[in-house]
Amino acid sequence: MEVGFLGLGIMGKAMAANLLRHGFRVTVWNRTLAKCQELAALGATVGETPASVVSKCRYTIAMLSDPSAALSVVFDKDGVLEQIGSGKGYVDMSTVDAATSTKISEAVKQKGGAFLEAPVSGSKKPAEDGQLVILAAGDKALYDGVVPAFDVLGKKSFFLGEIGNGAKMKLVVNMIMGSMMNALSEGLCLADKSGLSPQTLLDVLDLGAIANPMFKLKGPTMVQGSYNPAFPLKHQQKDMRLALALGDENAVAMPVSAAANEAFKKARSLGLGDQDFSAVYEVVKGAGGSGSGQA
Amino acid sequence: MEVGFLGLGIMGKAMAANLLRHGFRVTVWNRTLAKCQELAALGATVGETPASVVSKCRYTIAMLSDPSAALSVVFDKDGVLEQIGSGKGYVDMSTVDAATSTKISEAVKQKGGAFLEAPVSGSKKPAEDGQLVILAAGDKALYDGVVPAFDVLGKKSFFLGEIGNGAKMKLVVNMIMGSMMNALSEGLCLADKSGLSPQTLLDVLDLGAIANPMFKLKGPTMVQGSYNPAFPLKHQQKDMRLALALGDENAVAMPVSAAANEAFKKARSLGLGDQDFSAVYEVVKGAGGSGSGQA
Amino acid sequence: MEVGFLGLGIMGKAMAANLLRHGFRVTVWNRTLAKCQELAALGATVGETPASVVSKCRYTIAMLSDPSAALSVVFDKDGVLEQIGSGKGYVDMSTVDAATSTKISEAVKQKGGAFLEAPVSGSKKPAEDGQLVILAAGDKALYDGVVPAFDVLGKKSFFLGEIGNGAKMKLVVNMIMGSMMNALSEGLCLADKSGLSPQTLLDVLDLGAIANPMFKLKGPTMVQGSYNPAFPLKHQQKDMRLALALGDENAVAMPVSAAANEAFKKARSLGLGDQDFSAVYEVVKGAGGSGSGQA
Amino acid sequence: MEVGFLGLGIMGKAMAANLLRHGFRVTVWNRTLAKCQELAALGATVGETPASVVSKCRYTIAMLSDPSAALSVVFDKDGVLEQIGSGKGYVDMSTVDAATSTKISEAVKQKGGAFLEAPVSGSKKPAEDGQLVILAAGDKALYDGVVPAFDVLGKKSFFLGEIGNGAKMKLVVNMIMGSMMNALSEGLCLADKSGLSPQTLLDVLDLGAIANPMFKLKGPTMVQGSYNPAFPLKHQQKDMRLALALGDENAVAMPVSAAANEAFKKARSLGLGDQDFSAVYEVVKGAGGSGSGQA
Repeated sequence: MEVGFLGLGIMGKAMAANLLRHGFRVTVWNRTLAKCQELAALGATVGETPASVVSKCRYTIAMLSDPSAALSVVFDKDGVLEQIGSGKGYVDMSTVDAATSTKISEAVKQKGGAFLEAPVSGSKKPAEDGQLVILAAGDKALYDGVVPAFDVLGKKSFFLGEIGNGAKMKLVVNMIMGSMMNALSEGLCLADKSGLSPQTLLDVLDLGAIANPMFKLKGPTMVQGSYNPAFPLKHQQKDMRLALALGDENAVAMPVSAAANEAFKKARSLGLGDQDFSAVYEVVKGAGGSGSGQA
Repeated sequence: MEVGFLGLGIMGKAMAANLLRHGFRVTVWNRTLAKCQELAALGATVGETPASVVSKCRYTIAMLSDPSAALSVVFDKDGVLEQIGSGKGYVDMSTVDAATSTKISEAVKQKGGAFLEAPVSGSKKPAEDGQLVILAAGDKALYDGVVPAFDVLGKKSFFLGEIGNGAKMKLVVNMIMGSMMNALSEGLCLADKSGLSPQTLLDVLDLGAIANPMFKLKGPTMVQGSYNPAFPLKHQQKDMRLALALGDENAVAMPVSAAANEAFKKARSLGLGDQDFSAVYEVVKGAGGSGSGQA
Repeated sequence: MEVGFLGLGIMGKAMAANLLRHGFRVTVWNRTLAKCQELAALGATVGETPASVVSKCRYTIAMLSDPSAALSVVFDKDGVLEQIGSGKGYVDMSTVDAATSTKISEAVKQKGGAFLEAPVSGSKKPAEDGQLVILAAGDKALYDGVVPAFDVLGKKSFFLGEIGNGAKMKLVVNMIMGSMMNALSEGLCLADKSGLSPQTLLDVLDLGAIANPMFKLKGPTMVQGSYNPAFPLKHQQKDMRLALALGDENAVAMPVSAAANEAFKKARSLGLGDQDFSAVYEVVKGAGGSGSGQA
Repeated sequence: MEVGFLGLGIMGKAMAANLLRHGFRVTVWNRTLAKCQELAALGATVGETPASVVSKCRYTIAMLSDPSAALSVVFDKDGVLEQIGSGKGYVDMSTVDAATSTKISEAVKQKGGAFLEAPVSGSKKPAEDGQLVILAAGDKALYDGVVPAFDVLGKKSFFLGEIGNGAKMKLVVNMIMGSMMNALSEGLCLADKSGLSPQTLLDVLDLGAIANPMFKLKGPTMVQGSYNPAFPLKHQQKDMRLALALGDENAVAMPVSAAANEAFKKARSLGLGDQDFSAVYEVVKGAGGSGSGQA
C-alpha cells in the first residue's frame, strides 16, 4: 500500500518509519528537507511539495505541529488543495482545534476529495512503538481505506462520526484526567496532614481498584514537588475550559469538573501555568507556600 | 507458626483456610460452631471460646462482621480480654470505626497485651487468593511478628503507625475513588450529550494513561443503567463525609471531593442510597430521569 | 440643555419624558413614528432620522432594544455616523455586548466624535422615576458633559474608565446575584427538609444583616413554586458563563460562582431556561420533582 | 410583669436594663455580684442564687456566655433545677449547641417546669436598643407567657416549634451568609483583576437589588484588607460545617455552600481562623498573598 506523509517532526518521523518498516511505500515531505533524508535512508521516496505528494498518492497523511502549520500545508502555494480531488483522501493526524479542522475539511470536500481528522493520544514512545490511540472522524470510506495504516501506527483506532468528534473525544478524556489529578492531589494532601505518608498512599493506590498509569507516573514526582512539564498546566486548564463550554452548549452540569477547573485557574494565578499539570497539587497544599498556621 | 482465628464468615473462612494451606497451625472459633467443622476438615483445631483461643495461641487474628461483633468478642464473657496479657498479641482485621478500634486497643494494652488494627482492602475473591491489601496500625513489634501470616493473606501489607491510621488510609483511598466516579460520570454524560458514544469513551479511556480497573468494571454497567450494589452509595457517601471531616479537623480544603460528596448526597435524596455507588451517574444525567428539554 | 434621544421603547420613552419634565430640550427619533407623537405632546421636537438628530444636537443619547438595533442606528443609511464628528457626543445606554460597543466606539471616534457606553441597572419603574443606576465608560469629557442628563435619568451614575467596563461591571454584579440566589435556594431547601418553615426563614432573613430587596421579592414566590420570568434563567446563566470566562482570562479562581453556574446549567437541562432565574430552587429541591425517597 | 434574669454580661446587662426601663420588675443574678449592683441602681432586685431567683419568679430568663455556663447555672448546687417546677418557666437565650439545649430541656421538664430555648440574632447594639431577633423553640405556652418580655428585648420574636429549631434556624441563616460572603469576595476580586475598582463595585451593589447591610459594613474593610474580628472566621466555618452536616442528615445537596465551606477551610489553613470571617477574601485574592504571575 502506498501513502504520502507530510510532516517529519518527532511524531511524524516515528510514524513514517513505522509504515516503512511494515512494508508500506511512503512518499514523504517536510518543510526542511534534511529530515526527509533520514526517511529516504529507510526506503522512503521524497516529494518536492505537499501538492506533488498528493498528486502521486491516493492517501496522504499529515502530522504537523500546530493549527497554523496544518493550514499552511493545505492552503499555501504548492499545498494539498492544488492536487486533492475525487478519488483522493487527506488524513490530518495533527492536534488542532475544531475550527481549523472544519476549515480544512470543507476546502478538501469542495475540491471533491475526502477528509479525515485523526488526532492521536500518545506521544513519542507510543509513536515509535506503533501504540498510539487514534481518534478519527469525518469520511467513513476514507477511514476504511486507511485502516491498514492505522493498524500499523496505533494499537487501536476509533471512527467517531462527524468532523469535530475526534477533538471532542480528546476534551472529554482530558477533562476526566484533570478531575482525577485533583482527586489525587486532595488525597495526597489529606494523607499528609492526617499523619499518613503520601508515598504509602501511592503504594496502596497502586494495588487497588483505582490504580492507573497516571497516578503511578505522576504521584512520586508530586510528592517530591517536581513538576517538569510533560503536559503544561495551562493546556490542561484550557482543555477543561473547552470541555465545560461544550457542556454548557449541551446543558450538562458538571460540578466536579468545574471545581477542578477552578483549582487549575488558581494554579495559573500562582504562576504555575507552564509547570506540569500535576502542579495543581501546590494549590491544594496551600497555594503559594507562604504557608501556614492554622486556627 | 501457630495462630488463633476468630470469625469464620465469608472473609474469615477464606483467610483461615489460606493459612492452613500454607502450613500454619490454626485454632479457630466462630459464634456458630458449624463453620468451625469446615475448617477442622482442613486441619484446624477448634477452640471453645475466644478466651480459650487466646489462651492457647501467642497471636490471635479476628475477622468479624461489624463493630458490635468486634466489641463483643473482646469484652463479653469468655472474651479475648480474659486471657490476653503480656507476650500475647491480638490482631483485628475487621473494618471498624476509629472509636471501636481505640476502645479495643486500650483494653488490650491495659491487660499487658499487644494490639494491631489491620483492616483490608479487597473482598471474597482476593481473600481466597491471598491477594488482600492489609492496612495495619498499632503495635509495631506485633506487626513484625505476624508478617508471615500477612504474607499469606495478602499481596501486600503496610504498617501505618498509630491506631486509627488504618481506618484513615481507607477513607483517603475511598475519597479519591468517589471523586473519580464523579469524574467518570460527568465524562460519560458529556460524551453522550455531545454526540459521542459513552461506550466508545470507555474504550478510549481503557487504552490510555488513566485506565483503571474501576472504570473497566463499572463503566459498562453504568452505560446500561445497572447499579447492582457491590459498594452501596450510602456507604461511599459516608466515607466521603468522614474524609471531609478529617480534612476539616486538619484544615485541608478539598473542593473537588466536596463537590463529589454533594453529588452523592443528591443521589441519596433521589432514593439511590442502596444502589451501587456508580448510581451517582443518574444524578449527573439529570436527576430523576424525568428527562427533558433544554432552554 | 439640548439632547437628542434615539429609541422610544418602554425604557427610552420613560427616560425621554423625564428629561423633558426636567426642562431639557429633547429631539426624539424612533423607528416607528407613532411613539414620537407621544413625546411631542410632552414638548419634544421630532427628528426625521438618527442623522438629522445628531446634526441638530451636541449630545445624542440612544436606548435601543438589542445589539442589532444599536448597530443599525449607527451604521445604516441616515445613521448616526453620517453626522457625528468633532464636537459631538454619542451616548449608547442600550445593553449590548463588548464587541458591539467597541465597534460603535471605534467608528464614532474615527469620525472625530466622542463615545460613551452607559448601560443601566434597573427597568421600567426606575426609568420612570429617574432611579436608574448608570454604568458609563469611554470618553470622560463626554461623561462630564452629559452628567446633567444622567442626574435626571438615574439616582447615580458611575464613570468606569475604558469602553467595555460598563458591561463588565454588570457581569460582576450579576455573578454575585446568581451565587446569592443559589445560597438562598439552598437555605430554603435546608430549612424545609430540617423541619423549619421556609417562609419563617424569609422573615428571619429580612430582619438581619443579609436582608436585601432580591430575597424579599423572590423568596415568597419561590416558596410558592412560581417562577414568572422577570430575569430569565438562561440569561442569568449566560452572565455567569461570561463572568467566569472573564475570570479565566484574568486567572481568577471563583469556585462558589462556578458551583452556582453548574446549578443554573442543571436548571437549563431540566427545561427551566425560560423561567425566572429563581427557578434554580427547583434544582436544589430535587431536580425534576420526580420526587422521592431517601436511603 | 415580674421576671428573673440570670447572667449580666454585655448582652444580659443590656437586656435586663431594657426590661427595667419598660416597667418590668426584674430580679437579677450574676456569678460576680458587682454587675448586679449596676442593675440594682436601675431598680432591679438582686437574687442570691439562680435557685432563689427561680423560687421568686414565675419566669426566669438566662443569657450566659457559653454551654458550660448554661449547664452550670442549671445543674450546679443552688442552680435552677432546685426550684424549677410546675407553673414555672425557664427561658435560655444563650447561644448553645443542640445537645446542651436538649439536656437542659429534659431536666427542666422532668421537674415539671416549662422550657424555651431562645437564641438571638444581634449583638451589643441591638441588645441595648431592643432590636434583637429572637428564635424561640420549645414550650409554646411558655412562649406565649413571655412574649411581653420578648417584645421589649427584640424587634421580632419567632416561635419555631420543637427544641433544637432555634439553633437550626441560626445555622441556616449563617450558612447563607457564608455563601454570600464568598460571592462578594469573588466579585471584588474579579472586579479588581478586570480593571474595575472594587470600591466602585461596592457603590454599585449598594444601589441595587442585592444591597444588604453586610456588604455595606464589610465591603469597605475588605477592600482595605482589614479583618478585625466581629465574627471570627473559624466560627463561621464551624456553622457552615454544622449546616452541611444537617443537610447530610436530611439528604440535601448544597454544592454552593459546600464550595464556600472549602474556601473557609482554606482560610483556616492559612492562619486566618481568628480574623473576621470576611478574611476569606484573602483566599480568593490568592491565598497567602505571595502574589503573582500568570501563565
